[in-house]
Amino acid sequence: MKKNISIKYEPTSVKELLTEMKDISELVVDLAYSAVIFDSKEIAEEVKKLEDEMDKLLYQIRIIAMVATRTVKDAEQLAGLLQVAGAAENISNAAGDIIKLLDTSIESRLFLPSLFSKADEKIRTLMIAAKSDIANRTPAELNIESETGMRIIAVRRGEKWFFAPQDDFMFLQNDILILRGVGDGYLKLKEYAEGRKKWRELE
Amino acid sequence: MKKNISIKYEPTSVKELLTEMKDISELVVDLAYSAVIFDSKEIAEEVKKLEDEMDKLLYQIRIIAMVATRTVKDAEQLAGLLQVAGAAENISNAAGDIIKLLDTSIESRLFLPSLFSKADEKIRTLMIAAKSDIANRTPAELNIESETGMRIIAVRRGEKWFFAPQDDFMFLQNDILILRGVGDGYLKLKEYAEGRKKWRELE
Repeated sequence: MKKNISIKYEPTSVKELLTEMKDISELVVDLAYSAVIFDSKEIAEEVKKLEDEMDKLLYQIRIIAMVATRTVKDAEQLAGLLQVAGAAENISNAAGDIIKLLDTSIESRLFLPSLFSKADEKIRTLMIAAKSDIANRTPAELNIESETGMRIIAVRRGEKWFFAPQDDFMFLQNDILILRGVGDGYLKLKEYAEGRKKWRELE
Repeated sequence: MKKNISIKYEPTSVKELLTEMKDISELVVDLAYSAVIFDSKEIAEEVKKLEDEMDKLLYQIRIIAMVATRTVKDAEQLAGLLQVAGAAENISNAAGDIIKLLDTSIESRLFLPSLFSKADEKIRTLMIAAKSDIANRTPAELNIESETGMRIIAVRRGEKWFFAPQDDFMFLQNDILILRGVGDGYLKLKEYAEGRKKWRELE
Protein backbone atom coordinates (compact mmCIF):
# COMPACT_ATOMS: atom_id res chain seq x y z
CA MET A 1 0.00 0.00 0.00
CA LYS A 2 1.61 3.29 -1.03
CA LYS A 3 2.33 6.02 1.51
CA ASN A 4 1.23 9.02 -0.57
CA ILE A 5 -2.44 9.73 -0.45
CA SER A 6 -4.26 10.33 -3.70
CA ILE A 7 -5.56 13.65 -2.41
CA LYS A 8 -2.17 14.97 -3.51
CA TYR A 9 -3.38 14.80 -7.12
CA GLU A 10 -5.71 17.71 -6.45
CA PRO A 11 -4.56 19.26 -3.19
CA THR A 12 -5.65 22.81 -3.99
CA SER A 13 -9.17 22.07 -5.00
CA VAL A 14 -9.99 19.73 -2.11
CA LYS A 15 -8.39 22.19 0.30
CA GLU A 16 -10.28 25.11 -1.21
CA LEU A 17 -13.58 23.23 -1.22
CA LEU A 18 -13.30 22.15 2.42
CA THR A 19 -12.12 25.59 3.54
CA GLU A 20 -15.03 27.21 1.71
CA MET A 21 -17.45 24.76 3.35
CA LYS A 22 -16.01 25.52 6.81
CA ASP A 23 -16.22 29.28 6.20
CA ILE A 24 -19.78 29.07 4.88
CA SER A 25 -20.84 26.86 7.81
CA GLU A 26 -19.76 29.64 10.19
CA LEU A 27 -21.15 32.59 8.21
CA VAL A 28 -24.51 30.94 7.53
CA VAL A 29 -25.31 30.44 11.23
CA ASP A 30 -24.61 34.12 11.96
CA LEU A 31 -26.76 35.13 8.99
CA ALA A 32 -29.62 32.85 10.02
CA TYR A 33 -29.78 34.27 13.56
CA SER A 34 -29.50 37.79 12.04
CA ALA A 35 -32.38 37.11 9.64
CA VAL A 36 -34.60 36.20 12.60
CA ILE A 37 -33.42 39.06 14.81
CA PHE A 38 -33.95 41.69 12.08
CA ASP A 39 -36.90 39.89 10.52
CA SER A 40 -35.17 40.24 7.15
CA LYS A 41 -36.27 38.29 4.07
CA GLU A 42 -33.15 39.59 2.27
CA ILE A 43 -30.79 38.00 4.79
CA ALA A 44 -32.92 34.83 4.68
CA GLU A 45 -32.51 34.78 0.87
CA GLU A 46 -28.73 34.86 1.31
CA VAL A 47 -28.94 31.93 3.75
CA LYS A 48 -30.88 29.97 1.11
CA LYS A 49 -28.24 30.79 -1.52
CA LEU A 50 -25.44 29.64 0.77
CA GLU A 51 -27.36 26.46 1.59
CA ASP A 52 -27.61 25.70 -2.16
CA GLU A 53 -23.92 26.54 -2.57
CA MET A 54 -23.11 24.05 0.21
CA ASP A 55 -25.05 21.29 -1.57
CA LYS A 56 -22.95 21.92 -4.69
CA LEU A 57 -19.68 21.99 -2.74
CA LEU A 58 -20.51 18.73 -0.96
CA TYR A 59 -21.32 17.10 -4.32
CA GLN A 60 -18.03 18.35 -5.83
CA ILE A 61 -15.91 17.24 -2.89
CA ARG A 62 -17.50 13.77 -2.98
CA ILE A 63 -16.76 13.42 -6.69
CA ILE A 64 -13.13 14.48 -6.23
CA ALA A 65 -12.71 12.16 -3.24
CA MET A 66 -14.08 9.17 -5.14
CA VAL A 67 -12.00 9.85 -8.25
CA ALA A 68 -8.88 10.30 -6.10
CA THR A 69 -9.32 7.03 -4.23
CA ARG A 70 -7.01 4.23 -5.35
CA THR A 71 -6.48 2.19 -2.18
CA VAL A 72 -8.30 1.32 1.03
CA LYS A 73 -5.92 3.66 2.85
CA ASP A 74 -6.84 6.54 0.52
CA ALA A 75 -10.48 5.76 1.13
CA GLU A 76 -10.03 5.87 4.92
CA GLN A 77 -8.33 9.24 4.75
CA LEU A 78 -10.84 10.74 2.36
CA ALA A 79 -13.75 9.35 4.38
CA GLY A 80 -12.60 11.54 7.28
CA LEU A 81 -12.59 14.55 5.02
CA LEU A 82 -16.09 13.74 3.75
CA GLN A 83 -17.29 13.42 7.33
CA VAL A 84 -16.21 17.01 8.08
CA ALA A 85 -17.72 18.19 4.78
CA GLY A 86 -21.01 16.43 5.62
CA ALA A 87 -21.06 18.03 9.07
CA ALA A 88 -20.51 21.48 7.54
CA GLU A 89 -23.48 20.86 5.26
CA ASN A 90 -25.63 19.74 8.22
CA ILE A 91 -24.80 23.03 9.92
CA SER A 92 -26.03 24.95 6.88
CA ASN A 93 -29.19 22.83 6.83
CA ALA A 94 -29.79 23.81 10.46
CA ALA A 95 -29.37 27.47 9.45
CA GLY A 96 -31.97 26.82 6.75
CA ASP A 97 -34.34 25.47 9.43
CA ILE A 98 -33.89 28.68 11.43
CA ILE A 99 -34.86 30.95 8.53
CA LYS A 100 -37.98 28.88 7.76
CA LEU A 101 -39.40 30.89 10.67
CA LEU A 102 -39.69 33.84 8.30
CA ASP A 103 -42.32 31.97 6.32
CA THR A 104 -44.59 31.80 9.37
CA SER A 105 -46.98 34.51 10.53
CA ILE A 106 -45.26 37.63 11.80
CA GLU A 107 -46.82 37.30 15.26
CA SER A 108 -45.22 33.92 15.76
CA ARG A 109 -41.69 35.21 15.34
CA LEU A 110 -41.63 38.79 16.59
CA PHE A 111 -40.86 37.79 20.17
CA LEU A 112 -37.64 36.02 19.16
CA PRO A 113 -35.32 39.07 18.98
CA SER A 114 -35.91 39.79 22.66
CA LEU A 115 -35.05 36.19 23.50
CA PHE A 116 -31.56 36.68 22.13
CA SER A 117 -30.88 39.88 24.01
CA LYS A 118 -29.02 38.11 26.81
CA ALA A 119 -26.57 36.21 24.61
CA ASP A 120 -22.90 36.71 25.50
CA GLU A 121 -22.08 37.73 21.97
CA LYS A 122 -24.72 39.88 20.45
CA ILE A 123 -25.73 40.72 16.94
CA ARG A 124 -26.23 44.48 16.59
CA THR A 125 -26.48 47.26 14.01
CA LEU A 126 -24.70 50.57 13.47
CA MET A 127 -25.22 53.29 10.84
CA ILE A 128 -22.20 55.11 9.38
CA ALA A 129 -22.75 58.83 9.95
CA ALA A 130 -21.87 61.48 7.33
CA LYS A 131 -19.07 62.80 9.53
CA SER A 132 -17.57 59.36 10.24
CA ASP A 133 -14.17 58.72 8.71
CA ILE A 134 -15.09 55.06 8.26
CA ALA A 135 -16.98 56.17 5.13
CA ASN A 136 -15.03 55.84 1.86
CA ARG A 137 -12.61 53.38 3.40
CA THR A 138 -12.28 49.60 3.06
CA PRO A 139 -12.23 46.84 5.71
CA ALA A 140 -8.57 46.22 4.76
CA GLU A 141 -7.65 49.83 5.61
CA LEU A 142 -9.62 49.87 8.85
CA ASN A 143 -8.88 46.42 10.34
CA ILE A 144 -12.21 46.71 12.14
CA GLU A 145 -12.15 43.14 13.46
CA SER A 146 -8.68 43.25 15.00
CA GLU A 147 -9.23 46.80 16.34
CA THR A 148 -12.66 46.31 17.89
CA GLY A 149 -13.42 42.58 17.84
CA MET A 150 -16.57 43.26 15.80
CA ARG A 151 -17.14 40.96 12.84
CA ILE A 152 -19.18 42.44 9.98
CA ILE A 153 -21.83 39.92 9.02
CA ALA A 154 -23.57 42.10 6.44
CA VAL A 155 -23.98 45.65 5.18
CA ARG A 156 -27.28 47.19 4.12
CA ARG A 157 -27.14 50.06 1.63
CA GLY A 158 -30.63 51.34 0.84
CA GLU A 159 -32.39 48.32 -0.68
CA LYS A 160 -29.12 46.50 -1.38
CA TRP A 161 -27.36 43.96 0.86
CA PHE A 162 -23.72 42.95 0.93
CA PHE A 163 -22.73 39.84 2.90
CA ALA A 164 -19.40 39.21 4.65
CA PRO A 165 -17.74 42.19 2.88
CA GLN A 166 -14.27 41.43 1.54
CA ASP A 167 -11.16 43.62 1.80
CA ASP A 168 -11.96 45.65 -1.34
CA PHE A 169 -15.47 46.61 -0.20
CA MET A 170 -15.91 50.39 0.23
CA PHE A 171 -18.00 51.63 3.19
CA LEU A 172 -20.27 54.60 2.41
CA GLN A 173 -22.15 57.00 4.63
CA ASN A 174 -25.59 55.74 5.70
CA ASP A 175 -24.48 52.12 5.32
CA ILE A 176 -26.03 49.99 8.05
CA LEU A 177 -23.62 47.41 9.44
CA ILE A 178 -24.87 44.14 10.92
CA LEU A 179 -22.21 43.18 13.43
CA ARG A 180 -21.34 40.44 15.85
CA GLY A 181 -19.15 40.79 18.90
CA VAL A 182 -18.93 41.79 22.55
CA GLY A 183 -20.35 44.96 24.12
CA ASP A 184 -17.03 46.80 24.65
CA GLY A 185 -16.07 46.42 21.01
CA TYR A 186 -19.50 47.60 19.90
CA LEU A 187 -19.26 50.81 21.95
CA LYS A 188 -15.75 51.42 20.61
CA LEU A 189 -16.83 51.03 16.97
CA LYS A 190 -19.97 53.11 17.61
CA GLU A 191 -17.85 56.16 18.47
CA TYR A 192 -16.08 55.94 15.09
CA ALA A 193 -19.24 55.13 13.13
CA GLU A 194 -21.01 58.14 14.65
CA GLY A 195 -17.98 60.35 13.92
CA ARG A 196 -17.39 61.16 17.59
CA LYS A 197 -13.83 59.85 17.30
CA LYS A 198 -11.38 59.76 14.37
CA TRP A 199 -10.27 56.28 13.34
CA ARG A 200 -6.79 55.95 14.76
CA GLU A 201 -3.98 55.75 12.24
CA LEU A 202 -2.48 52.30 12.09
CA GLU A 203 1.22 51.78 11.57
CA MET B 1 -58.08 34.39 21.73
CA LYS B 2 -56.02 36.33 24.23
CA LYS B 3 -53.21 38.62 23.09
CA ASN B 4 -50.66 37.71 25.75
CA ILE B 5 -48.60 34.69 24.99
CA SER B 6 -48.21 32.05 27.64
CA ILE B 7 -44.44 32.26 27.40
CA LYS B 8 -44.81 35.23 29.74
CA TYR B 9 -45.42 32.79 32.60
CA GLU B 10 -41.76 31.73 32.47
CA PRO B 11 -40.01 34.37 30.42
CA THR B 12 -36.64 34.11 32.14
CA SER B 13 -36.18 30.40 31.91
CA VAL B 14 -37.25 30.08 28.25
CA LYS B 15 -35.05 33.06 27.39
CA GLU B 16 -32.13 31.63 29.32
CA LEU B 17 -32.56 28.18 27.82
CA LEU B 18 -32.70 29.45 24.23
CA THR B 19 -29.81 31.86 24.78
CA GLU B 20 -27.74 29.06 26.26
CA MET B 21 -28.59 26.83 23.30
CA LYS B 22 -27.58 29.55 20.82
CA ASP B 23 -24.30 30.20 22.69
CA ILE B 24 -23.48 26.48 22.91
CA SER B 25 -24.30 26.01 19.20
CA GLU B 26 -21.64 28.60 18.37
CA LEU B 27 -18.99 27.46 20.85
CA VAL B 28 -19.36 23.77 20.04
CA VAL B 29 -18.57 24.26 16.32
CA ASP B 30 -15.37 26.16 17.17
CA LEU B 31 -14.41 23.46 19.67
CA ALA B 32 -15.08 20.65 17.18
CA TYR B 33 -12.86 22.20 14.49
CA SER B 34 -10.23 22.87 17.20
CA ALA B 35 -10.34 19.24 18.38
CA VAL B 36 -9.55 18.08 14.83
CA ILE B 37 -6.90 20.73 14.18
CA PHE B 38 -5.05 20.01 17.45
CA ASP B 39 -5.92 16.31 17.44
CA SER B 40 -7.12 16.72 21.02
CA LYS B 41 -9.21 14.08 22.81
CA GLU B 42 -9.69 16.57 25.67
CA ILE B 43 -11.38 19.14 23.44
CA ALA B 44 -13.42 16.34 21.85
CA GLU B 45 -14.58 15.30 25.35
CA GLU B 46 -15.85 18.85 25.95
CA VAL B 47 -17.75 18.73 22.63
CA LYS B 48 -19.43 15.50 23.78
CA LYS B 49 -20.37 17.12 27.11
CA LEU B 50 -21.87 20.12 25.36
CA GLU B 51 -23.75 17.84 22.99
CA ASP B 52 -25.29 16.04 25.99
CA GLU B 53 -26.05 19.40 27.60
CA MET B 54 -27.86 20.45 24.41
CA ASP B 55 -30.04 17.33 24.50
CA LYS B 56 -31.05 18.21 28.06
CA LEU B 57 -31.74 21.85 27.18
CA LEU B 58 -33.88 20.87 24.19
CA TYR B 59 -35.86 18.50 26.39
CA GLN B 60 -36.38 21.19 29.04
CA ILE B 61 -37.43 23.85 26.56
CA ARG B 62 -39.93 21.44 24.96
CA ILE B 63 -41.45 20.65 28.35
CA ILE B 64 -41.76 24.34 29.27
CA ALA B 65 -43.24 25.18 25.84
CA MET B 66 -45.86 22.44 26.11
CA VAL B 67 -46.82 23.33 29.67
CA ALA B 68 -47.04 27.02 28.70
CA THR B 69 -49.33 26.42 25.72
CA ARG B 70 -52.97 27.31 26.31
CA THR B 71 -54.21 28.35 22.85
CA VAL B 72 -53.49 27.65 19.17
CA LYS B 73 -51.83 31.07 18.99
CA ASP B 74 -49.53 30.20 21.90
CA ALA B 75 -48.67 26.96 20.14
CA GLU B 76 -47.78 28.76 16.89
CA GLN B 77 -45.48 31.14 18.69
CA LEU B 78 -43.79 28.47 20.76
CA ALA B 79 -43.41 26.22 17.70
CA GLY B 80 -41.18 28.93 16.20
CA LEU B 81 -39.07 28.95 19.32
CA LEU B 82 -38.80 25.14 19.28
CA GLN B 83 -37.71 25.30 15.65
CA VAL B 84 -34.76 27.52 16.56
CA ALA B 85 -33.97 25.30 19.56
CA GLY B 86 -34.07 22.21 17.34
CA ALA B 87 -31.75 23.84 14.80
CA ALA B 88 -29.28 24.74 17.58
CA GLU B 89 -29.29 21.09 18.65
CA ASN B 90 -28.72 19.94 15.04
CA ILE B 91 -25.67 22.20 14.92
CA SER B 92 -24.27 20.55 18.04
CA ASN B 93 -24.97 17.12 16.52
CA ALA B 94 -22.95 18.17 13.45
CA ALA B 95 -20.11 19.20 15.80
CA GLY B 96 -20.39 15.72 17.34
CA ASP B 97 -20.01 14.20 13.84
CA ILE B 98 -16.82 16.21 13.33
CA ILE B 99 -15.15 14.92 16.51
CA LYS B 100 -16.00 11.29 15.66
CA LEU B 101 -12.93 11.63 13.42
CA LEU B 102 -10.80 11.34 16.54
CA ASP B 103 -11.97 7.75 16.97
CA THR B 104 -10.48 6.79 13.60
CA SER B 105 -6.85 5.84 12.95
CA ILE B 106 -4.39 8.68 13.38
CA GLU B 107 -3.19 8.46 9.75
CA SER B 108 -6.68 9.12 8.46
CA ARG B 109 -7.00 12.46 10.21
CA LEU B 110 -3.54 13.97 10.43
CA PHE B 111 -3.79 15.70 7.05
CA LEU B 112 -6.86 17.70 8.13
CA PRO B 113 -5.08 20.55 9.99
CA SER B 114 -3.28 21.57 6.79
CA LEU B 115 -6.60 21.62 4.96
CA PHE B 116 -7.83 24.38 7.24
CA SER B 117 -4.76 26.57 6.91
CA LYS B 118 -6.34 28.72 4.19
CA ALA B 119 -9.51 29.58 6.08
CA ASP B 120 -10.24 33.33 6.42
CA GLU B 121 -10.54 33.04 10.15
CA LYS B 122 -8.00 30.75 11.64
CA ILE B 123 -7.81 28.80 14.83
CA ARG B 124 -4.37 29.28 16.40
CA THR B 125 -2.47 28.89 19.66
CA LEU B 126 -0.35 31.17 21.82
CA MET B 127 1.57 30.52 25.02
CA ILE B 128 1.69 33.17 27.75
CA ALA B 129 5.36 33.93 28.46
CA ALA B 130 6.73 34.49 31.97
CA LYS B 131 7.41 38.15 31.20
CA SER B 132 3.95 38.78 29.67
CA ASP B 133 1.70 41.10 31.68
CA ILE B 134 -1.33 39.10 30.53
CA ALA B 135 -0.42 36.58 33.25
CA ASN B 136 -2.27 37.03 36.55
CA ARG B 137 -5.01 39.08 34.90
CA THR B 138 -8.58 38.20 33.91
CA PRO B 139 -10.38 38.44 30.54
CA ALA B 140 -12.53 41.19 32.10
CA GLU B 141 -9.45 43.32 32.88
CA LEU B 142 -7.85 42.75 29.50
CA ASN B 143 -10.82 43.00 27.09
CA ILE B 144 -8.86 40.77 24.73
CA GLU B 145 -11.70 40.31 22.27
CA SER B 146 -12.52 43.99 21.80
CA GLU B 147 -8.83 44.96 21.77
CA THR B 148 -7.57 42.33 19.32
CA GLY B 149 -10.61 40.61 17.79
CA MET B 150 -9.32 37.25 19.08
CA ARG B 151 -11.91 35.02 20.75
CA ILE B 152 -10.57 32.59 23.35
CA ILE B 153 -12.05 29.18 22.64
CA ALA B 154 -10.11 27.29 25.30
CA VAL B 155 -7.11 27.47 27.61
CA ARG B 156 -4.77 24.57 28.29
CA ARG B 157 -2.89 24.57 31.60
CA GLY B 158 -0.62 21.54 31.86
CA GLU B 159 -3.02 18.60 31.68
CA LYS B 160 -6.07 20.75 32.47
CA TRP B 161 -8.43 22.41 30.00
CA PHE B 162 -10.69 25.41 30.50
CA PHE B 163 -13.32 26.12 27.87
CA ALA B 164 -14.69 29.56 26.89
CA PRO B 165 -13.15 31.21 29.99
CA GLN B 166 -15.46 33.62 31.79
CA ASP B 167 -14.65 37.08 33.15
CA ASP B 168 -13.32 35.79 36.50
CA PHE B 169 -10.85 33.34 34.95
CA MET B 170 -7.21 34.16 35.80
CA PHE B 171 -4.56 33.72 33.10
CA LEU B 172 -1.26 32.23 34.30
CA GLN B 173 2.14 32.04 32.69
CA ASN B 174 2.60 28.99 30.42
CA ASP B 175 -1.13 28.85 29.71
CA ILE B 176 -1.73 27.88 26.10
CA LEU B 177 -4.60 29.81 24.54
CA ILE B 178 -6.65 28.32 21.70
CA LEU B 179 -7.88 31.35 19.78
CA ARG B 180 -10.01 32.23 16.84
CA GLY B 181 -9.76 35.40 14.76
CA VAL B 182 -8.02 37.19 11.90
CA GLY B 183 -4.26 37.38 11.30
CA ASP B 184 -3.77 41.03 12.33
CA GLY B 185 -5.39 40.47 15.69
CA TYR B 186 -3.33 37.34 16.26
CA LEU B 187 -0.03 39.18 15.66
CA LYS B 188 -1.17 41.97 17.98
CA LEU B 189 -2.03 39.58 20.83
CA LYS B 190 1.17 37.61 20.19
CA GLU B 191 3.29 40.66 21.08
CA TYR B 192 1.56 40.95 24.46
CA ALA B 193 1.56 37.19 25.14
CA GLU B 194 5.28 37.01 24.43
CA GLY B 195 5.91 40.04 26.64
CA ARG B 196 7.34 42.13 23.79
CA LYS B 197 4.73 44.83 24.47
CA LYS B 198 2.98 45.93 27.66
CA TRP B 199 -0.79 45.57 27.62
CA ARG B 200 -2.07 49.09 27.11
CA GLU B 201 -3.93 50.62 30.01
CA LEU B 202 -7.63 50.90 29.32
CA GLU B 203 -9.60 53.85 30.55
